[in-house]
Amino acid sequence: MKKIGKQTIKFDCPPSISEVASIVGPKESKGPLAKYFDECLDDEFWGEKSWEKSESKIIKETVNMAISKSGFSSNSIEYCFAGDLLNQCISSSFGLRGLNIPFLGIFGACSTFVEGLSLSAIMTESCAEHTLCAASSHFCSAEKQFRFPLELGNQRPPTSQWTVTGAGAAVISKSGNGPYITHITTGKIVDMGIKDANNMGAAMAPAALDTLICHLKDTGRNPNYYDAIITGDLGYVGKDILTELAQKERIQYKICL
Amino acid sequence: MKKIGKQTIKFDCPPSISEVASIVGPKESKGPLAKYFDECLDDEFWGEKSWEKSESKIIKETVNMAISKSGFSSNSIEYCFAGDLLNQCISSSFGLRGLNIPFLGIFGACSTFVEGLSLSAIMTESCAEHTLCAASSHFCSAEKQFRFPLELGNQRPPTSQWTVTGAGAAVISKSGNGPYITHITTGKIVDMGIKDANNMGAAMAPAALDTLICHLKDTGRNPNYYDAIITGDLGYVGKDILTELAQKERIQYKICL
Repeated sequence: MKKIGKQTIKFDCPPSISEVASIVGPKESKGPLAKYFDECLDDEFWGEKSWEKSESKIIKETVNMAISKSGFSSNSIEYCFAGDLLNQCISSSFGLRGLNIPFLGIFGACSTFVEGLSLSAIMTESCAEHTLCAASSHFCSAEKQFRFPLELGNQRPPTSQWTVTGAGAAVISKSGNGPYITHITTGKIVDMGIKDANNMGAAMAPAALDTLICHLKDTGRNPNYYDAIITGDLGYVGKDILTELAQKERIQYKICL
Repeated sequence: MKKIGKQTIKFDCPPSISEVASIVGPKESKGPLAKYFDECLDDEFWGEKSWEKSESKIIKETVNMAISKSGFSSNSIEYCFAGDLLNQCISSSFGLRGLNIPFLGIFGACSTFVEGLSLSAIMTESCAEHTLCAASSHFCSAEKQFRFPLELGNQRPPTSQWTVTGAGAAVISKSGNGPYITHITTGKIVDMGIKDANNMGAAMAPAALDTLICHLKDTGRNPNYYDAIITGDLGYVGKDILTELAQKERIQYKICL
């Protein structure tokens, strides 16, 4: 791999996403992406006594499913990168403690899964045959931790988003039939001073744009190059902010978003 | 770099630790390592209104000091790996938000700094000239979060340890005069069921030994090879457990600890 531009890595031998798995909660099961998930749960508890235990179970089962679907033995997975939103990343560390794979905890909030994909890809191209990455979140445990316990029945402001209940996992391999991870552009912290825990989209939009612009500059590509440009969920408000900011930057960078 | 054995990476061109910096609190300033720290603080607040803000300031100033001592411009540092013990890694993300360096958050609790060193070294050998890693903790913020707020004046049990108030940072470079990072052995989660938040040494000792034994097996080395074998602080209780467990394993692995 080599660096191109300021923040982007280009892989010489792009690692392959061998297999993925996802398990999601009831709300996600009713959404437009439902058919793409491996398992849709009927309730937020999944037979556990707390939301945190449920989240741990979700990430554990998702990871087991990804490994199982890949057809590789878990012994052949050399590293696991995982994280979540809860304090001390308890979902992933408790959920994956039985995995017996060298473990590196990560915390990137909404970017955790992509951080995991990035580090897995780097590790795979550098020295491993197969690596694993995973991330989880849970609507109920996230509300309790970041906002108000659901039992309070607080009214939610119009800018509030709905944290996903679910987990995703991917097995990354040195060789395979793709899809491939060809480039990684690692973002910087961009803090525009948003302090409203119910307006995460506004908090994240400037960083999303900064990373996007950097990626386009580093690769010399135009947004038209892509079939889809996907960010973490910015919500309606954050997406509007991203679009507005992008239009301002357009003049400077001559990109078309 | 290449994998040797099960969990160990050996670097072909070992990255160099170009510079380090550390700032510590009042208790650490009175300890036997005091003369090695760059700055010793007189109080836990360092002019801030909360312990969390103080911790953020400590990691920020430590990182600035490491970069400044290294003589490299911060623009030449390509990646920053950092984390801490607080929820959502707030010390490092708030402390380092002004850094303007691509940022990857990590969470490994007591292993955070070594996880940062590992990932920085991998990134440096793979594709970067200079990377940075940092970690912080703060006795007062950690007690508040993991045990009891200090104001309660709770009695501390004999097994309780004293979380460091301080931060460490290191600049890792592709070339330099060392010390070099030659190998990395990444540990697995080893959970023997210790549930006492005041007995962290007992919780960590089995994982420390597991990683140590794996490193010795992978490298084919004997503990005598090393001038020092250093773990995260296991405390008196955890150290005794490690020694006892090691003696049991001795027969099987023929190592001498």
